[in-house]
Parts: sequence; C-alpha cells; structure tokens
Amino acid sequence: MGTEELKPYVIGLDLGGTNSVFGIVDSRGEIKATTAIKTQAYQDVNDYVNASVEALQAIIDIDTVGGIENIKAMGIGAPNGNYYSGTIEFAPNLIWGHNGVVPLAKLFSDKLGIPVALTNDANAAAIGEMTYGVARGMKNFIMLTLGTGVGSGIVINGQVVYGCDGFAGELGHVIMRRENGRPCGCGRTGCLEAYCSATGVARTAREFLATRDTDSLLRQLKPEDITSLDVSIAAGKGDELAKEIYEFTGEMLGEACADFAAFSSPEAFIFFGGLTKAGELIMEPIRRSYQEHALNIFRDKPKFLVSGLDGSSAAVLGASAVGWDL
Amino acid sequence: MGTEELKPYVIGLDLGGTNSVFGIVDSRGEIKATTAIKTQAYQDVNDYVNASVEALQAIIDIDTVGGIENIKAMGIGAPNGNYYSGTIEFAPNLIWGHNGVVPLAKLFSDKLGIPVALTNDANAAAIGEMTYGVARGMKNFIMLTLGTGVGSGIVINGQVVYGCDGFAGELGHVIMRRENGRPCGCGRTGCLEAYCSATGVARTAREFLATRDTDSLLRQLKPEDITSLDVSIAAGKGDELAKEIYEFTGEMLGEACADFAAFSSPEAFIFFGGLTKAGELIMEPIRRSYQEHALNIFRDKPKFLVSGLDGSSAAVLGASAVGWDL
Repeated sequence: MGTEELKPYVIGLDLGGTNSVFGIVDSRGEIKATTAIKTQAYQDVNDYVNASVEALQAIIDIDTVGGIENIKAMGIGAPNGNYYSGTIEFAPNLIWGHNGVVPLAKLFSDKLGIPVALTNDANAAAIGEMTYGVARGMKNFIMLTLGTGVGSGIVINGQVVYGCDGFAGELGHVIMRRENGRPCGCGRTGCLEAYCSATGVARTAREFLATRDTDSLLRQLKPEDITSLDVSIAAGKGDELAKEIYEFTGEMLGEACADFAAFSSPEAFIFFGGLTKAGELIMEPIRRSYQEHALNIFRDKPKFLVSGLDGSSAAVLGASAVGWDL
Repeated sequence: MGTEELKPYVIGLDLGGTNSVFGIVDSRGEIKATTAIKTQAYQDVNDYVNASVEALQAIIDIDTVGGIENIKAMGIGAPNGNYYSGTIEFAPNLIWGHNGVVPLAKLFSDKLGIPVALTNDANAAAIGEMTYGVARGMKNFIMLTLGTGVGSGIVINGQVVYGCDGFAGELGHVIMRRENGRPCGCGRTGCLEAYCSATGVARTAREFLATRDTDSLLRQLKPEDITSLDVSIAAGKGDELAKEIYEFTGEMLGEACADFAAFSSPEAFIFFGGLTKAGELIMEPIRRSYQEHALNIFRDKPKFLVSGLDGSSAAVLGASAVGWDL
C-alpha cells in the first residue's frame, strides 16, 4: 500500500461516440500526456481495447510519465457506464456496446495490470468538477450536462449517487410535459432531454420557425439542417427568435431544477456542455425560472454555475478523477 | 463514553399538529412506556416544553425505565423540522411554531440534560423503517408518507438525504401537472401533494362526482363533507367511483415514482400513512403506472412496499431511532 500511494498519475479515458480520448493526469489535474483513437473503428470490443492499450503505451512510456509503475489506476467515463459492475450496458451509440453488457473495466485492467473504474460520462463530469473544478469543497450539488443528450451527475453528502443498480442520476429523463410531450430517444415522450439537449434546441428552432412570424436569420437555413450551433450563432448576432429559443430552453431547465431541489436541496446546479456557451442567454432564464417555480424554502438558495473546466479536457479530467478513488 | 453506551433507552417524540406522543424505546424497538400531551394547548413553546417534560418525568421514573440516567438521547420527528439546526422553521400548523424558528432540540436538551436530535416527520418515518421496519438492511429507498400532506424521506447510501440546508426530501412538492394544476397549500399549483394526500383524495372525489355520471355511495354525502375516509369506506363496499379515485391517485403516484427512480434508483418505495389502508386498491395502480412510465432500465427493479410498522407507534419509533445516532 505504501508504494501504491506514491504513484503520481492516473489515466483518464473519455469514451465518446466518436472519439476515445486518453490522458495521463497528475493529482493537481494537470494533463501530462494525451492520445486518442476512433471509438467506432472496431467491431469487437477486444480490438478496441487492444488499439487503446497500444496508443496508451506510447504515452505511458514517455520520460515525464516514466512507465506503468507510476500509474495508480485508470478511470473511464462512458455512456451507459455502470460504476458497480464496471460494465457498459446496452449503449445505443456504440457498435461494440449496443447489444449487451461489456465488462470494459475488467478488459482494461487485465491488459494494463492496474485497477480500473468506470462510470457514466455525466458522473465523471461531476467527479471532475468536485476534484478539479467549481465544485471543490461542495458536498451537495447536481451537474447537468447539456450535449447531444441531457446527462446528470448527482452528489449528495460528498458521494456520487449511483442508486441500487449503478444507474441513478438520469435527470435527462424526468418528464417535463405529461401531455403532448415530444418523443424522446428513450421511447417515451416529454423527457427533459427532448427539449434541453442540443437536438432538443434544434427542434425548438424548427417549431418556433413554423409557428411564429418573427423574422430570423434562421429562416435562411433549411429547417431540417438547423443545429443548436446555428441557433447559437444567430443569437450571437442579436437574432430575436434565437434568443426566444434560449429563453424557452432555460425556462424549462429552471422548472426542472425546482423539482430537483425538492429532492436533494443542492448547494449548486452546475451546467456543462455545448449549450452553456450561450452564457447569460441561457443562464439568466434558468435562474429566473427557478426562482419562479421553486418551493419557497428553496428559493434564493442554490448557485447556478457553469463548469470551470476547459471543455476539451474536462471529460478526460473527470474520468481520471474516478481513478483516484480506487 | 463507556457508560453512555450502556444506557438502554431513547425517548421518541412524534410531534403532530394535534397530539405530541412520547415513547421510551429500547434498541429492539420495543416501546416501554408512553405518554402524550396536546400540542396546541400552549401559546408559548416554553410552556409546551415544560408540559412535555412534566409528562415525560412520570414515565422516565417508572421502575422499568429506572430514571433519566438510563436514557441515552431523545429524537423528535416534527413538521418542518431541520436536522442540521435542531429547529422547527415556520411550521404552518403549529401555533407556537408558525411564525419563526424554534430551537426545539436545544430547549428539550437543556431541560432533560441529554442530547436531542430533531428531523422532519417523514425523515423520522424513513429512519424508523430502516431501524425497525421493512427497510432493515436497505441502503437506498424512498419513503412516501400519504397523510394530510405528502411527505418523503430519502435514503441514499444508507444515509437520510438532508441536502445543503436540512430541507431536502420534499417530494410532495414536485410538480405533476404544469398546466391547470390544483392549488397547493405551498402557494403553487400542480404539486403531488395536491392530488395524493388525504385532502387531495377528497378533492378528487368531489371532482369525479361533479364530472362523472357514475352512481356512487359518495353521492349520499354533502360534497364538501367528503373525506378520504369516506372514499375508503365506499371502496371497501365495492363502490366503483371510489375505486376510480384510488386508481387515479395510484396512477399519479406511479408516475411520480418513475421520475424519482431517475434520480436515485432506489431498491424500494415504501408507503406509509392513512391512504395505504386501501391496500391493493391503491398499490396495484401505483405498480402498474410505474411500469408504464419508468425509463426502461428502471422497470421491474424497485419493490413497492407498505410500511411494516404499526401505524400508531411507527412515528414514535421513527423519532426514537433518530436518537440512537447521537
């Protein structure tokens, strides 16, 4: 155990639908070396792990790192990752993972000879924020990741909430519209994710364009081609309709946070992901709507923060932080 | 500390709007002695505490208990109770507590010379269930108390969730109807409590009687006099409309539980309070609606249980269990 504690680095893997980004990280959150492979270039998970370990070997052996004996553990943040079992379960966007239960932590651990822990990407982001970011010192907060989907990592009494099965914290799938709700990728309707993800925002844009007369830069695009990035660009140019889209999105997030406060009364809600780049255009309606909808005892209490971690490295840092706990 | 551990009893106080019931309880959950006073017979909280201690003294001194030196601590379950501060804060139904912050734990501790902890009544029920009831051995569950209001006690990783301020776990005030929701006592509309409390059930009865043609025993009563007990009695006689009222109530509880599962993925939902006396009339629609509304990964997972503690003593046992942790 004494020598274990001397190992100065952990490996973080941000396993995304497109890229798998690896980083070797020290205890202060400094990324010493990084590498990446294409997640979906492999049909079989064993090929994926072999390719990963090969890419990793090159950065493990550089002088700064000094070999595997200086690495304490590895942490993985992955969609549908289960912390308890170290598996990825029925991940719809992974060709080698959509069809069953993949024991990814064990596969990496066997190859590398170090402990490996795995959690879902939003939990990894929450752990990263708690270890290196704006949530340092916080015992109770909720992280909401606004990307292709809406993910969440919930921290209570300083611990990530995993629930009885490792799958707790799916706040993108609480129901916000019980009647005439939008269809969600999960097969149900009215989920928060169907409105407040990047795809949800693009859909809101198409709906607003179809049902409102407001002039807008977005009318120059084919409705079916509009993305949340287009909305962001238009809003940046002062486009009124684009601002209304952020208003709508922020108001729903504020309503949702009011319900989440009734659950765990967090010290802060921390937002992460592409949509947060809209800054006050989305954060102001979130705060205002929260104040309007929260139960009186929860008003004026939580902070509404944007992740302080650099977007491109946050996920790797978050994943690496999972490794420190091993 | 050695002698502390030998003290065999704790005092539990179930502080309700009408009665304050005290019990002296041993570590197996056996109530050795009990007494009660009227909560609202005192304008001033000091008079209330003096009357309580006087009533308590009589049972503390009986031979079975053997005096205050055999009592380790006192636990209080009270509306709007804050565990962190030991205070009751703006409790609308208490004449000596509706108007500010009452340091009740300290007042009792000063008088009795033993440690006193306080929590809200639903958290006390959850702790009682974990210590003496159907949640023994469970690390993750949600207790829902269906009484005059809807309260909740959330347990995650074996700990009650208090949040950053001591007020977490107000699941009666998540919003179930965002449009045309019923007014709730909290000043907002559409809360779970406005539908699934005893008063909510009585209101559902009045709405169903006004909007449906179904024949019903409830039509023999003045609508404004109908209580949830009347609905229960009618349902017991096979009344169709009364059954539809439980159906409606259970379905909404199932929908709510589906959202709660997305938060903390509990091993069980445990129901407590008057409405659970309807048995399968309410539990069957809860389970069915949960299955219908839950995200696929949470279906078929949680148990739906009714509290195993005897109704009249459960609240005292729950309160006493808070004392054991001191």
